[in-house]
Amino acid sequence: MSFDIDKVRADFPILSTQVNGRPLVYLDSGASAQKPQVVIDAISRVYAGEYANVHRGLHYLSNLATDRYEAVRGIIARFLGARDENEVVFTSGATEGLNLVSYAWAAPRLQPGDEILLSVLEHHANIVPWHFLRERQGVVLRWVEPEPDGSLPADKVLAAVGPRTRLIAITHMSNVTGTVVDVGAIARGTDVPVLVDGSQAAVHMPVDVQALGCDFYVITGHKLYGPSGSGAIWVRSERQAEMRPFLGGGDMIREVSRDAVSYADPPLRFEAGTPGIVNQIGLGVALDYLMALGMDNIAAHEAGLRDYANERLSALNWLDIQGNAPDKGAIFSMTMRGAHAHDIATILDQRGVAVRAGTHCAMPLMQHYGLAASARASFAMYNTRSEVDALVDGLSFCHELFG
Amino acid sequence: MSFDIDKVRADFPILSTQVNGRPLVYLDSGASAQKPQVVIDAISRVYAGEYANVHRGLHYLSNLATDRYEAVRGIIARFLGARDENEVVFTSGATEGLNLVSYAWAAPRLQPGDEILLSVLEHHANIVPWHFLRERQGVVLRWVEPEPDGSLPADKVLAAVGPRTRLIAITHMSNVTGTVVDVGAIARGTDVPVLVDGSQAAVHMPVDVQALGCDFYVITGHKLYGPSGSGAIWVRSERQAEMRPFLGGGDMIREVSRDAVSYADPPLRFEAGTPGIVNQIGLGVALDYLMALGMDNIAAHEAGLRDYANERLSALNWLDIQGNAPDKGAIFSMTMRGAHAHDIATILDQRGVAVRAGTHCAMPLMQHYGLAASARASFAMYNTRSEVDALVDGLSFCHELFG
Repeated sequence: MSFDIDKVRADFPILSTQVNGRPLVYLDSGASAQKPQVVIDAISRVYAGEYANVHRGLHYLSNLATDRYEAVRGIIARFLGARDENEVVFTSGATEGLNLVSYAWAAPRLQPGDEILLSVLEHHANIVPWHFLRERQGVVLRWVEPEPDGSLPADKVLAAVGPRTRLIAITHMSNVTGTVVDVGAIARGTDVPVLVDGSQAAVHMPVDVQALGCDFYVITGHKLYGPSGSGAIWVRSERQAEMRPFLGGGDMIREVSRDAVSYADPPLRFEAGTPGIVNQIGLGVALDYLMALGMDNIAAHEAGLRDYANERLSALNWLDIQGNAPDKGAIFSMTMRGAHAHDIATILDQRGVAVRAGTHCAMPLMQHYGLAASARASFAMYNTRSEVDALVDGLSFCHELFG
Repeated sequence: MSFDIDKVRADFPILSTQVNGRPLVYLDSGASAQKPQVVIDAISRVYAGEYANVHRGLHYLSNLATDRYEAVRGIIARFLGARDENEVVFTSGATEGLNLVSYAWAAPRLQPGDEILLSVLEHHANIVPWHFLRERQGVVLRWVEPEPDGSLPADKVLAAVGPRTRLIAITHMSNVTGTVVDVGAIARGTDVPVLVDGSQAAVHMPVDVQALGCDFYVITGHKLYGPSGSGAIWVRSERQAEMRPFLGGGDMIREVSRDAVSYADPPLRFEAGTPGIVNQIGLGVALDYLMALGMDNIAAHEAGLRDYANERLSALNWLDIQGNAPDKGAIFSMTMRGAHAHDIATILDQRGVAVRAGTHCAMPLMQHYGLAASARASFAMYNTRSEVDALVDGLSFCHELFG
């Protein structure tokens, strides 16, 4: 299937709306992506005619909902190249997935003085759960800094592994600089378990967890063009066996009495309570949509956008871009002398161009760059070259105002 | 506003569908409720034209989504009679709310030998998080049994409070017997903090957390005619101040560095990561819908259903009903000599009647009754007397087959 950008754009109803009297130019997909009509329709269809709770009923609607819901496990396994769909644990998003690893795997295993190796590129979701272990049980956080261009060579990460390193928790793609980290080379280069935050990467490139050789791979549905409150973590079965339960409740137990409790086999062991049934069904539709387009085609389209944006933005000598690693994703964090990031975002918004301003949930990286805030344009598969032009025009207008 | 059952039914598209060639008689709302068209439409409308991530953007769509999302906090506060909307913490459902109390409030405070008082009526969601504390830190679980009719007098609960009791965790309405517990009398009768599982009760009767005087009140959106993955917990501000963070990630921090982390004020402190934005917006619509109908009106309609079902079911001398407390909710757990609960559910399903069979995530209660499984019909505001008749006809057919 070829990638037809006009057809893709037509699949997303919000992209043809106007904002502040101007056509919407949505460059905030790094925060959350818009949804194709097939996903919106699937949600409505399930609620209007196919809805019930899963796993627990014997009636028609419950069986139907269960079949739809459980099928998503296989879709995610296919999307991530997992060997076994039982290695897919449903979550409400990346944050729950990362906390699952912290609470269920790391907390009961790590001793005071044990180390977790993080990169300075990480999002708070892949930092704060480890700070909890530092605060609560004396785990030590070790940090690897990116190179001046924002890249993070696998060798540099591997060189920071020490005898007390118990986990490497690392992003596959920075949500600020777009840096792609060669997490496969890291995972293949060490016996230390590797947790990959794929929140950004899985949206923009093909992922094969078997080829990567990592231990945990986290995705979040709302960035993958799927519904709010959907997501998953792939957990290698050996690691699953080392995890204790995290959230307690229905569906994750085998037997409960007043004095004892025993737990269901994974993945249900890690999925307590009524799940985000319709959210996950919608995520399955979104991933099927992406796989039909082809992740390679999406990556190629976005590489073209990145190159064109690089070319146009680098010509603006009053603009600073944080990070310009080779093969980075189409994410551009920017600062302009004389203009606050929030002013840039507000002025762009008046022209219909949606970007984000702030610390992007990555304060250690902002501290590394000595910045209080930046403006960020994050592109997705539905963006175009003319939207790059709209961004550049808006930035030039800011420069005239503030520069 | 008066309660017009025909109009209410017309608001729920799934109720006019057919199952196995028969009109759907949905008596599984205790597991999950169906959704009114206004909720379905709200979800579609947001995704199709008003969607972005919340809190973090400065652009039009982000501001719009943030306003819609944050307004739900006030709607929930109004629905629960909370004094301050900042006492409302968004969750993905009851299970996350109950685990929040276990991990954030109880785990850091309770010492070995400290006791948590539970009723035998509890759902696993209000049992397993406390078993974790028993397994992991030597907390002792104490149990109060219901009376033969399924009722649970407040005096009996209060009499079980001992010097080591640190928390009373109790349901407001049993999901198996429909028993309504006078949690207000319990909370007013002791200084021990009281956590109320309102997963069922808040759907069927007016709730006023200030009048109840409890400390924590848990609700779940999918049972409240709202979307998958929505919910909240009301936490009295004094208890909020005693809680440490639970899930770590974006939005719940004030500042993050390599060496330190500080946390946002409540309620954001307990809401990590991109939340279930559209799910919560949909929950707000569902609660507005309920409040427009009037919870008193809904309770009165359901009391009529309960009385009629009681009358008709109690006339079946081959049927056993578990629990017949005065003023119980319209939930009927049933067994029939000679017929397995799963057979009953399957045969009813062939007639379009959806009930649940199994242990209803309440194994200690099933053990109390000496049952391996039961069939459960749980009524909601959209059910009718003729649906009670359909249930009775179906049960009679089962009795002819198996009795």
